[in-house]
Amino acid sequence: MEKLDHKDYLNFTVGPVMMDDKIRKIGEQQIPYFRTDEFSYITLESERLIKEIIKTEEKSRVIFLTASGTGAMEATVMNTLSKDDKVLVVNGGSFGHRFEELCEIHEIPHEVIRLECGHKLTKEHLEQYRDKGFTAFLVNAHETSTGVLYDLELIGEFCKEQNIFLIVDSISSFIADKYEMDKCHIDVTIIASQKAIALPPGVSIIVVNERAVKRIEENNVKSMYFNLKSYLSNGERGQTPFTPAVGILIQLNAKLKDIAEVGVETYINRSRALAEDFRNKIKELPFEIVSENLSNAVTPLKPLGKMGAHDIFEYIKDNCNIFVCPNGGELRDTLFRVGHIGDLKIEYNDKLIEVLKDMYKRGML
Amino acid sequence: MEKLDHKDYLNFTVGPVMMDDKIRKIGEQQIPYFRTDEFSYITLESERLIKEIIKTEEKSRVIFLTASGTGAMEATVMNTLSKDDKVLVVNGGSFGHRFEELCEIHEIPHEVIRLECGHKLTKEHLEQYRDKGFTAFLVNAHETSTGVLYDLELIGEFCKEQNIFLIVDSISSFIADKYEMDKCHIDVTIIASQKAIALPPGVSIIVVNERAVKRIEENNVKSMYFNLKSYLSNGERGQTPFTPAVGILIQLNAKLKDIAEVGVETYINRSRALAEDFRNKIKELPFEIVSENLSNAVTPLKPLGKMGAHDIFEYIKDNCNIFVCPNGGELRDTLFRVGHIGDLKIEYNDKLIEVLKDMYKRGML
Repeated sequence: MEKLDHKDYLNFTVGPVMMDDKIRKIGEQQIPYFRTDEFSYITLESERLIKEIIKTEEKSRVIFLTASGTGAMEATVMNTLSKDDKVLVVNGGSFGHRFEELCEIHEIPHEVIRLECGHKLTKEHLEQYRDKGFTAFLVNAHETSTGVLYDLELIGEFCKEQNIFLIVDSISSFIADKYEMDKCHIDVTIIASQKAIALPPGVSIIVVNERAVKRIEENNVKSMYFNLKSYLSNGERGQTPFTPAVGILIQLNAKLKDIAEVGVETYINRSRALAEDFRNKIKELPFEIVSENLSNAVTPLKPLGKMGAHDIFEYIKDNCNIFVCPNGGELRDTLFRVGHIGDLKIEYNDKLIEVLKDMYKRGML
Repeated sequence: MEKLDHKDYLNFTVGPVMMDDKIRKIGEQQIPYFRTDEFSYITLESERLIKEIIKTEEKSRVIFLTASGTGAMEATVMNTLSKDDKVLVVNGGSFGHRFEELCEIHEIPHEVIRLECGHKLTKEHLEQYRDKGFTAFLVNAHETSTGVLYDLELIGEFCKEQNIFLIVDSISSFIADKYEMDKCHIDVTIIASQKAIALPPGVSIIVVNERAVKRIEENNVKSMYFNLKSYLSNGERGQTPFTPAVGILIQLNAKLKDIAEVGVETYINRSRALAEDFRNKIKELPFEIVSENLSNAVTPLKPLGKMGAHDIFEYIKDNCNIFVCPNGGELRDTLFRVGHIGDLKIEYNDKLIEVLKDMYKRGML
């Protein structure tokens, strides 16, 4: 059972993804003490770089949480929404469902736009909710479970017209797809370390504009760890209220400098090129790409042959040292995913295609 | 300002601490996908090893959180206590105060034993609370801000006699001081990755016995990320409900195997030897060790000369590439700390003593 040495695996999951050598090298270093001006400098620089990359104004703020993306989603719901809100939630898969559950747990009044699995959100969906008193909107930029990328310009325009506070989970889309926070009238953006930024999992990031800061300041949250007010005040001097995942924050700083240097478009283009290459090459094989309007981050594949999606994942892991990305829940046997984020190359696509072709030849698919 | 390369620093803080080469090497590796039998195996093995090291029975459970120690303290208060409890909290410094604040935030009825800074808890303190209907007890094994190690046998005996549910934050004491969970009638133990286990910060661990599991199952927690019920059920198959800090959990597994191999006593003895050596050598210098009943993890030093505690920390950091551990809040200028946890050696003590002697000679202390 103890096959723990995954160093040589090719990893096409949507997180943790493959890290580049520079980031791995930092992972080997000793971790410095962090209540210092030097560490504050790193954090403040990272804040500035994230705002630049995500295209939001200078007055916006960045919060660094030591938690998974779900922790950041929950902290956002708790801190920027309240019982006085009327929230519209897009639920097109597991991660939309997570926002819905968070509203239920925290008793935030909400209605849900339920989309069929793999379907995009249209203008017609939104029009039914016009002038109905909605005050906030929760959406995943990319519904990671199915690969659908929602039209944030469309949603942003609707929210602007209706003066609706817009929260976007961009965890699996950030730096894989185009994202312009202010232009799309987005008030809060949620990010996590282990997706396209390609760092170890453990850190999530919440970017908040002035309007969101005001909501946080005025809210009364029954939480210490997820009280974002204390992150905002400590953040002014580049610190966090509690010991953060210092090592990952140092890796984040290095990665952000790389992104800023080459331009975020270079990263987006790389994911797009990997996705297009893979989607082109997979055509010859018995898989259906079921979803509309795909993100560059991932290709969802429905196997058309006899082997179920989860069995394909297991087979490739155990026999070929490659991770593709399985699904949980209802989609477990019908859909697996191939990611295009992290330190991947076109020749890795070739290797995976070769493996799938070989399985096909042998009558497995 | 950009002095970010702390690779060659000696680190005497209480976290993050110095990591050994094996752990650092794992930090350089690619991080595997985690929804696999292989990763479940790691997690289940870590659970077993922690229970063995902490000396609790087979039926106890281990919860892995991606959060700082404070996150685990809050999750414990939220999940194992309720409005029906009457809790006794020991507040002898910043971390005792944190438990008090958590009870306030979550509206848990509580009374506080306030200890003077640096003082230990005695039988006399406890006797005043006998037969007063207390149902739970919150204490830090080691009040990290002052270095005081509380007498857990004394507390455990009192709690047993009074049928009180006992929660111990052992974050900065675990594997630095003797700790026997079941023998001391402890129901919940809280640990974090960046203290004496000497891993990167980002993971905290909650060990719960059967009685604590029952409290968690019966509680109704308004939280998704800190709902320990879902950690317990996912943990049965070696998984977590949300993406954990996979890299740190792999490092944890390696470290636990090392501890189990040489015996936890070897680690405790090493911290004790480092602490005794340092406390012996510091006698010649103008510092007072203010606290009673010290933990092996740290020596609290009150400077008796003209230079304040925080200035000493800054001077040594900037001029000698050594981190000692500053205090925040009220103790900022009167107390700093020297840690004895992580990958330290007697010769590092010598180096620090040399630095302090040199400062003394030059009339700075």
